[in-house]
Amino acid sequence: MKKIINNPEEVVQDMLKGLIAAHPESLKQIPNTTAIVRKDAPVANKVGIVSGGGSGHEPAHAGYIGEGMLDAAVCGEMFTSPTPDQVFEAIKAVDSGSGVFLVIKNYTGDVMNFEMAAELAEAEGIDVEKVVVNDDVAVEDSSFTTGRRGIAGTVFVHKIAGAKADAGGSLQEVKDVAEKVVVNVRSMGMAVTPCTVPAAGKPSFTLDENEMEIGIGIHGEPGIERKKLTSADEIAEELTQKVLEDIEFNSGDEVAVMINGMGATPEMELYILNGRVQEILHERGLNVHKTFVGEYMTSLEMAGCSVTLLKLDKETKQLLDSDSNASAFHS
Amino acid sequence: MKKIINNPEEVVQDMLKGLIAAHPESLKQIPNTTAIVRKDAPVANKVGIVSGGGSGHEPAHAGYIGEGMLDAAVCGEMFTSPTPDQVFEAIKAVDSGSGVFLVIKNYTGDVMNFEMAAELAEAEGIDVEKVVVNDDVAVEDSSFTTGRRGIAGTVFVHKIAGAKADAGGSLQEVKDVAEKVVVNVRSMGMAVTPCTVPAAGKPSFTLDENEMEIGIGIHGEPGIERKKLTSADEIAEELTQKVLEDIEFNSGDEVAVMINGMGATPEMELYILNGRVQEILHERGLNVHKTFVGEYMTSLEMAGCSVTLLKLDKETKQLLDSDSNASAFHS
Repeated sequence: MKKIINNPEEVVQDMLKGLIAAHPESLKQIPNTTAIVRKDAPVANKVGIVSGGGSGHEPAHAGYIGEGMLDAAVCGEMFTSPTPDQVFEAIKAVDSGSGVFLVIKNYTGDVMNFEMAAELAEAEGIDVEKVVVNDDVAVEDSSFTTGRRGIAGTVFVHKIAGAKADAGGSLQEVKDVAEKVVVNVRSMGMAVTPCTVPAAGKPSFTLDENEMEIGIGIHGEPGIERKKLTSADEIAEELTQKVLEDIEFNSGDEVAVMINGMGATPEMELYILNGRVQEILHERGLNVHKTFVGEYMTSLEMAGCSVTLLKLDKETKQLLDSDSNASAFHS
Repeated sequence: MKKIINNPEEVVQDMLKGLIAAHPESLKQIPNTTAIVRKDAPVANKVGIVSGGGSGHEPAHAGYIGEGMLDAAVCGEMFTSPTPDQVFEAIKAVDSGSGVFLVIKNYTGDVMNFEMAAELAEAEGIDVEKVVVNDDVAVEDSSFTTGRRGIAGTVFVHKIAGAKADAGGSLQEVKDVAEKVVVNVRSMGMAVTPCTVPAAGKPSFTLDENEMEIGIGIHGEPGIERKKLTSADEIAEELTQKVLEDIEFNSGDEVAVMINGMGATPEMELYILNGRVQEILHERGLNVHKTFVGEYMTSLEMAGCSVTLLKLDKETKQLLDSDSNASAFHS
């Protein structure tokens, strides 16, 4: 294990220290928690948006805190859900009286802990609503999930729900548009090399020198198939086809595309993959409104990628395009 | 070699295809070249800003094309300078009659080829000025350089020179402020794992399992010292001290900080490093105006980092803060 860290048991606290030190004008940490919130929270008359999950997926989720996106990100230990009390602290910190909306990736621990936090908050009179994101078409259930996993498509939920709240949407309106995004977003990923959780000290899985895994999750959970590493074009075809088959895409539909790197994949390779993805979408008659290429939802230093498609309508397109000053998301 | 590519000999062309496909509204490729320019180039009454160099450093340099930053990036083959004729085409494409400014990283091939392009352009009546960036304090000469190398600090030159041109600065004014940045910016890097050029098929150097190299270049050129991998705090101290010793920093000086990942380093580790860097700067009495943490100047999938400090004055601070819509740079 070759990592630029101090104590493997304290990587999350050390990361949060460096994160706050980098953005002291916009972020603050709730004392004695791993919850990061907007410095100006709670924002008056605005629904607060809270997300989070295990650490190791940076820039998810703290990089998405900012005007027009998240108000708080609750950072769990490595690949581990934050506890209910931490999420509860974040909910209290961002509630201005307009209610709080939770964006949860579909992992059993996250769903349970965010729901327990919601109950604690409701007991104190805070209105809480939520959405569970399950964009990964690869597998129906996994080692960490009942139902499909939430992966890179979650970032589109953050952006669009956050923009709706920023535009003055009510808690119900934020929930409605977030659910619309969840219904219309699909992703699928693959990996060529594993990652190592610092405290474990060794990779969570192995792949042979010429092998890749299709459909792998963002914690290295098994996917659909291990096979010989193919070309970027073939990988693009396999991932994109699987995504396109999952919901109805019709000629003329407008879509947003995310080509996400898993952590160690050079941006060059993501752009190479994107070249073929765009051709496939063009052949299908889809109208690509906007493309995002980069690292949005990672798995430490895993090498690999995911392809996400979001079918847009007038409302979601306008909300996707609206301004945000989150450090890790450009519109 | 495990890479998401098609033909190893065609990675740059394939990348550029995917890049243009991702940003069709803002970028175009000059036909039969590897020069990428703003779609609206040349911009009337504005000095054109051109940079570039070998590919493999993404998002440098095409990710920095946009309003308030670069007008063109000329992409060479992997770790190889673009040819003079390619640079010449970029100069012609961005000249509105106000002249063109070249930002060159200090590598022998880049300096020679950009200077030859400047001569070709001047022969056609285009005013051209340039700056050579040599921010790397690690070594005085290297395998690719006479004098110090240009590394991540180059991105600050792009931003500030680009902002000056965008604000209506003359060619001489752009040159003056770019030179001021070069005088005031210093960087130093390190690596824990190497990278592999696709056409070579094997790593350009090796490091033992518990070894790191301090002062390494962005093509894996040798640095100062190979030694046992230490903690993030010790790495932060070594890099930051070397940078601080190189030019005069006085208590109360304002600085911009860049914690740059070399390609495969998780963002978590960059933030951990940043925690200690900020403490050191605070202890020195420096006033950190803004911090940038992420991948700005990479070396394919090399794992490692660099620390850059830029001493600011009123003018450079304002230009650093001004808006840009380059895809890879947030102000």
